[in-house]
Amino acid sequence: MSHELGEGDCLAWAARDPSGVLSPYRFSRRKVGSEDVLIKITHCGICYADVGETRNTHGFSKYPVVPGHEIVGYVKEVGSNVGKFKVGDRAGVGAYVTSCRECEPCKDKMESECEKGLTLTFGGIDVDGTVTKGGYSSFIIVDESYCYTIPENLPSAVAAPLLCAGITVYSPMMRHKMNQPGKSLGVIRLGGLGHMAVKFGKAFGLKVTVFSTSMSKRDEAINLLGADNFVISSDEQSMKAIARSLDFIIDTASGNHAFDPYMSLLKRRGVFMLVGFPDEVKFSPINLNIGSKIFSGSVTGGTEETQQMIDFCAAHEVYPEIELIPIDYCNDALERVIKKDVKYRIVIDIENSLN
Amino acid sequence: MSHELGEGDCLAWAARDPSGVLSPYRFSRRKVGSEDVLIKITHCGICYADVGETRNTHGFSKYPVVPGHEIVGYVKEVGSNVGKFKVGDRAGVGAYVTSCRECEPCKDKMESECEKGLTLTFGGIDVDGTVTKGGYSSFIIVDESYCYTIPENLPSAVAAPLLCAGITVYSPMMRHKMNQPGKSLGVIRLGGLGHMAVKFGKAFGLKVTVFSTSMSKRDEAINLLGADNFVISSDEQSMKAIARSLDFIIDTASGNHAFDPYMSLLKRRGVFMLVGFPDEVKFSPINLNIGSKIFSGSVTGGTEETQQMIDFCAAHEVYPEIELIPIDYCNDALERVIKKDVKYRIVIDIENSLN
Repeated sequence: MSHELGEGDCLAWAARDPSGVLSPYRFSRRKVGSEDVLIKITHCGICYADVGETRNTHGFSKYPVVPGHEIVGYVKEVGSNVGKFKVGDRAGVGAYVTSCRECEPCKDKMESECEKGLTLTFGGIDVDGTVTKGGYSSFIIVDESYCYTIPENLPSAVAAPLLCAGITVYSPMMRHKMNQPGKSLGVIRLGGLGHMAVKFGKAFGLKVTVFSTSMSKRDEAINLLGADNFVISSDEQSMKAIARSLDFIIDTASGNHAFDPYMSLLKRRGVFMLVGFPDEVKFSPINLNIGSKIFSGSVTGGTEETQQMIDFCAAHEVYPEIELIPIDYCNDALERVIKKDVKYRIVIDIENSLN
Repeated sequence: MSHELGEGDCLAWAARDPSGVLSPYRFSRRKVGSEDVLIKITHCGICYADVGETRNTHGFSKYPVVPGHEIVGYVKEVGSNVGKFKVGDRAGVGAYVTSCRECEPCKDKMESECEKGLTLTFGGIDVDGTVTKGGYSSFIIVDESYCYTIPENLPSAVAAPLLCAGITVYSPMMRHKMNQPGKSLGVIRLGGLGHMAVKFGKAFGLKVTVFSTSMSKRDEAINLLGADNFVISSDEQSMKAIARSLDFIIDTASGNHAFDPYMSLLKRRGVFMLVGFPDEVKFSPINLNIGSKIFSGSVTGGTEETQQMIDFCAAHEVYPEIELIPIDYCNDALERVIKKDVKYRIVIDIENSLN
């Protein structure tokens, strides 16, 4: 076995340096502890976070980087105290694999707001001191409290994107009672997160407006995803026509853009919800103070609401639109994520391509 | 009567041009309508808004400008349908004198969020088409729905600043349940609004931290106003020591300053409340998204909560700290407002000086 490939029984694809190019890699995972489940991974969604970590965008990457935090597979082994899973069950893992468990948010099952900081599924420091490695790999070992059950009728491939894209929009929507029929939702950018926001919006009985920079997305927004309205954000007249009409706008754009044009579309007490990370947030206080509007942000969600969301999606067939790829296509796939050339989430068929 | 002084039976001080210099002025007010009360003004607080309007800071000033929207006096005449007031009662008027009365916020008695726009107490367009003129004058005629009753034990001079400074901080505090004992409040800048936020905070049983740029305010913040903690905002170590400790920060600074250092002091789900109008709002999404924080804004408050606030202040002796001045000192007073050389609200003794 070459040094480059690494040693151990876990197969993976890893980036070795900030070029971000992934290639086959072998490593060992820690032993299964008493609370742990070992999941043989069948599917892993590709998230924009995978791009940042493999290319060291934030300067914190610890190579080799095995990305992936939208993980679904079969339980192959369980620790002695595991109660929620048995061998053969399907299980999912999202953006984090543990948290402090002691702070108020952790006790409230809102671990995504853990005060001591989450252990992320990749690039974090695991309980054994090693750097966590994500789902572009053959198996993973995670405390059962941070694993989700996958309802029988929910296919694994569509379950995967729920674990980051799904919960990231579901959590703030629920927090602000955007599951009440009749309310009006705006969705900025129709990508992995945005298309899930539209789907949740329609499942909740909301009136959904999609904002896009390109007319090419109109047909799918309306006819495939069921949005009620489609607005080109640079079209001042169309924007003006819906001034003060929206209860909630969820901004899933990861890049920089102006906020003021959207703020003026909110009703009084309306909420602008940022789930991406632009370089900065900047707007005029006029668009905030008049009408007592709210600008808020969010990252992923807690374990309890993640399970609720998975169960909701299974019950109401709220399925992400996915493109299934073999793992040796993952470098091209990440390039397409950067170019925003994805409809709407790419999922790696780990089961049939990583061996 | 000179042309410069104007004509009519209402005495006032007005600015004639963007120099902002005020001088004696006479004009006529509209007749008392069936819903109106005529208030003989005894006191009028000086607000930062008076500076902006007299100097045409926003470019919308219509000269002559008679400023003043913290008005208290005696009812001297009532219209045929007036039920809330009788001649001889004390009455107050705040930042607006009417609103559309038809939109949802107006029906909810949250007229400050009126969708068709408020009629401001000065510089607005009154029901008779004239430009509204404020409380630097001998009397005012206002629909009783936009006038407040002043409880017997509340002195007129201290009641005046409640009508803008008081309600502007009380309204967002109540909206975000910051009247629950034990919660932690941060107050940025100890001026007219800020010192009222401290007083409300203590009356509500909150733990209050005052942020200031100058150590010279410490003694009064703690000993006069009763704040629990005083932090120099440029002192990084002191700021770090209270990271993630505050439920709510109210920003009463009217000038520009950095928001990120304060955002990191909020607990998860904590609220940063802007009641001033800096040129722009700018912060990093990291300080918003992590912990699902809220950045919101507010302007004045509704008529129902304004009356509640006045009654609360009377019942709990929550009195603004004021400096009483004669009207011929108003130009100097406005200069001192600009220089932030006020402890903590200047009130014009209209009754004894405008004649």
